[in-house]
Amino acid sequence: MTAPRASVIVAAGGAGRRFAGAAPAAPGSGATEPKVFLDLAGRPVLAYVLEAFAQVAAVAEIVAAVPEDRVAWARETFGEALADGRPVVFVAGGEHRPDSVERALAASDRATDLVAIHDAARPLIRPAVIEEAMRVAVEQGAAVVGRPVDHTVKRVDDHARVTETVPRRHLWLAQTPQVFRREVIAQAYEHRGSLLGRVTDDAQLVEALGRPVAMVQGDAANLKITTPEDLRTCEALLAAGWPFEG
Amino acid sequence: MTAPRASVIVAAGGAGRRFAGAAPAAPGSGATEPKVFLDLAGRPVLAYVLEAFAQVAAVAEIVAAVPEDRVAWARETFGEALADGRPVVFVAGGEHRPDSVERALAASDRATDLVAIHDAARPLIRPAVIEEAMRVAVEQGAAVVGRPVDHTVKRVDDHARVTETVPRRHLWLAQTPQVFRREVIAQAYEHRGSLLGRVTDDAQLVEALGRPVAMVQGDAANLKITTPEDLRTCEALLAAGWPFEG
Repeated sequence: MTAPRASVIVAAGGAGRRFAGAAPAAPGSGATEPKVFLDLAGRPVLAYVLEAFAQVAAVAEIVAAVPEDRVAWARETFGEALADGRPVVFVAGGEHRPDSVERALAASDRATDLVAIHDAARPLIRPAVIEEAMRVAVEQGAAVVGRPVDHTVKRVDDHARVTETVPRRHLWLAQTPQVFRREVIAQAYEHRGSLLGRVTDDAQLVEALGRPVAMVQGDAANLKITTPEDLRTCEALLAAGWPFEG
Repeated sequence: MTAPRASVIVAAGGAGRRFAGAAPAAPGSGATEPKVFLDLAGRPVLAYVLEAFAQVAAVAEIVAAVPEDRVAWARETFGEALADGRPVVFVAGGEHRPDSVERALAASDRATDLVAIHDAARPLIRPAVIEEAMRVAVEQGAAVVGRPVDHTVKRVDDHARVTETVPRRHLWLAQTPQVFRREVIAQAYEHRGSLLGRVTDDAQLVEALGRPVAMVQGDAANLKITTPEDLRTCEALLAAGWPFEG
């Protein structure tokens, strides 16, 4: 097979993905700015994501689903192509994350071999990790970046009382990107209707088909920004020179 | 009841808790320096732990189990009391963590109400989190600091193939401190022989007795230093002003 080509889908969220108290990178957007447009060390969070994927040669295009009221602004701010001409496409996301991914999938180039789906709120993804996930996805059909659980895991009841210590061997925490051969994720999304409400990541749709999904080890620093503290942590890591050597 | 008084047990590890490639804070110790003596922004990791617990008024004493060949050095470096006179006791740890905790427990003051057990390799613990865990331990007998799982959790086979997406609702990742009423942890350690090899934290011994254990929410930044990257991350957080306001 020739070198695989990948479409990257960036899920930049809908209305729920906002928090107050951090500086917006877009003018006039105020306290409910979607996180991926927030300022991280001088640039929007999303800019880091685009740059990381741009460094991967297999990436043929990037399709980002953003809130409808940010599409025009995103096109203007980030442009509609990488410096070397590969397209960057902004589409309006849906109400929930899977709706956004579905729209981006529909807008992507059907001629690519792989689809990599990434949370826009994970700016510290390293290109080498993306490449490894793509390599494994070519081989096995689906690859999910994550980390083996290195904490003791407790199951609790509704009152935060521990009911069980869950054996952590063989448990991983999933991150993104999650990379799929195109026919695998297309089939998974065709069947997603039957699973709605129980799905927290894209790989789960593939698992539901009975198809193999492999885990690929990523970095602890590939955190998802969900609180102002997370944003500060990303800033701190960048200021300290992330990605660290050795 | 009068204000509770607590003994703090710091598990500073045995021979296994070392990694190469970071600057030692102890002279002449070289590449296999135990992590808790490594330099973190100019001071040994353990210094941050002692300082955090020193800020908690309920702390009556700190007993730290360190490798046998570091006991004298630790006494000289950190002293045998906090500035206000509360004792800091260094004892030789055992081969495995529970052995170290048991020795420290035996060396602690039996007149205290609570025992807080903390991994020495978690330097970024905040005093307010310690206090909250102590408050809950007084009420419920046992309190474990941790974080609700906010990732999708995957169970894998021996080849890192996903076999299941584990429902994450009601799952927490345990950190330390783990705080116990003294009679609870004493009884738990009396019975630990029957559980050896299956235990990854102290609370599990209490769970095995059928006694309640409550989870208390801590900070993501309360990470355990197990790799050079973790040490860099702690340095980055400190350089950025951790603990962050708001």
